[in-house]
Amino acid sequence: MLDASQCHHLWGSTSDDGTVVIDPDDAQHAIKSLRLKSGDHVVVLDGSGTATYCELISLSRKVVTGKRCHSLPDYGKVAGDLHIAMAPTKQMDRMHLFIEKAIEMGVHAITPLICFHSERRHVPINRILRVARAACKQSHKGHMPTIHEAIPFNKFIQQHDESRRLAMAICLGYRQDWGTWLQSDKATTLLIGPEGDFSDDEWELANKQGADAVSLGDHRLRTETAGLLAVAQYAGKFSDS
Amino acid sequence: MLDASQCHHLWGSTSDDGTVVIDPDDAQHAIKSLRLKSGDHVVVLDGSGTATYCELISLSRKVVTGKRCHSLPDYGKVAGDLHIAMAPTKQMDRMHLFIEKAIEMGVHAITPLICFHSERRHVPINRILRVARAACKQSHKGHMPTIHEAIPFNKFIQQHDESRRLAMAICLGYRQDWGTWLQSDKATTLLIGPEGDFSDDEWELANKQGADAVSLGDHRLRTETAGLLAVAQYAGKFSDS
Repeated sequence: MLDASQCHHLWGSTSDDGTVVIDPDDAQHAIKSLRLKSGDHVVVLDGSGTATYCELISLSRKVVTGKRCHSLPDYGKVAGDLHIAMAPTKQMDRMHLFIEKAIEMGVHAITPLICFHSERRHVPINRILRVARAACKQSHKGHMPTIHEAIPFNKFIQQHDESRRLAMAICLGYRQDWGTWLQSDKATTLLIGPEGDFSDDEWELANKQGADAVSLGDHRLRTETAGLLAVAQYAGKFSDS
Repeated sequence: MLDASQCHHLWGSTSDDGTVVIDPDDAQHAIKSLRLKSGDHVVVLDGSGTATYCELISLSRKVVTGKRCHSLPDYGKVAGDLHIAMAPTKQMDRMHLFIEKAIEMGVHAITPLICFHSERRHVPINRILRVARAACKQSHKGHMPTIHEAIPFNKFIQQHDESRRLAMAICLGYRQDWGTWLQSDKATTLLIGPEGDFSDDEWELANKQGADAVSLGDHRLRTETAGLLAVAQYAGKFSDS
């Protein structure tokens, strides 16, 4: 009987013929920590949206393979379309924390945004991808959110797709409440600035691209906390409707 | 000119005569890292709700004192009344993370709840209080949320004050959506269970005390992520209204 949610979730790839190969890191984990054996069932994710419920065939050293039993399309699909473009935090562990929790709560894309007041201007993407994969496995999400390379603010705004609604979280001046501003049937991009906030030039540039100023409440929030609050309230908007 | 939000925030105590004494840890921090000098202005918090805007008078070794310029009542006051009673996470750093972020977003009380399926049954409270104090300073909150000692589930339910609305986050069965269930003018307590969820007995006990079953969405969430989502959506309910 298939009950995918009770199985271990591993990262790997599935060929058209149904052969499953587990990624080396997870293969070792499967053998050494989980002590899986041939005949055991696992769910294999590759980030594409379709997961594979499979039976393990062979586990040797670092190579673990299996055979597809069922495809699980739209596995753990997250409703809506929320892209958070956020200044990277000074400490990378806070950025990783944001990635992990945002994926658990349900985000669709993340871009580290290099702003005028950003202290951190380089974001190692490989570690972020590892954290993101672990979050997908932990929260049973077949679809890996798109994690973009870090990009300067101006470039991000120039590339903005105008069919998406655009909001900028700012701390002062006239702002609409984020939760009220949200329309759950529209693809949405939210810009979140660094500790020193966005510069006036950045706000003008975003405003020209149609961005609305939004508030994430009256509290003074760290960057990553602002990001989490935004994702949580977006997720709530969907479960309300 | 008084602009408290631009000042450093330190922990300390203020006497009736206006004498301010900074806590030893923060005194050292003020001298060594912040390099504060006499004549500088800081905001001193003691968790009571009223902060003190003060001028530093003397900084020597580990003793830093000041003189009150203004009292700041209801400093950074958080609307509503939300008590999160949550099973402690296995790893304490995840519990600390929850405390930090929940205080930033605005929670009023936290109780570590020892449940039938809790793996962790002991919660060192001192480290939690340190994290909570740091979060108050960072997010400029004069009122320290009440952090209760860990308590067994049954005892917590017996002590429940019936004038508060009570909800229990569960993963299966009939549940109302947390965001929809919330009424922002009512004091609210939310129970969040451990990794293995609440036991049937726990659910029955809570139900007898008038608890409603609520859902925090369709996603599989870690305990601390569930807690953060709940606090974020509660905060959103208040900024909406």
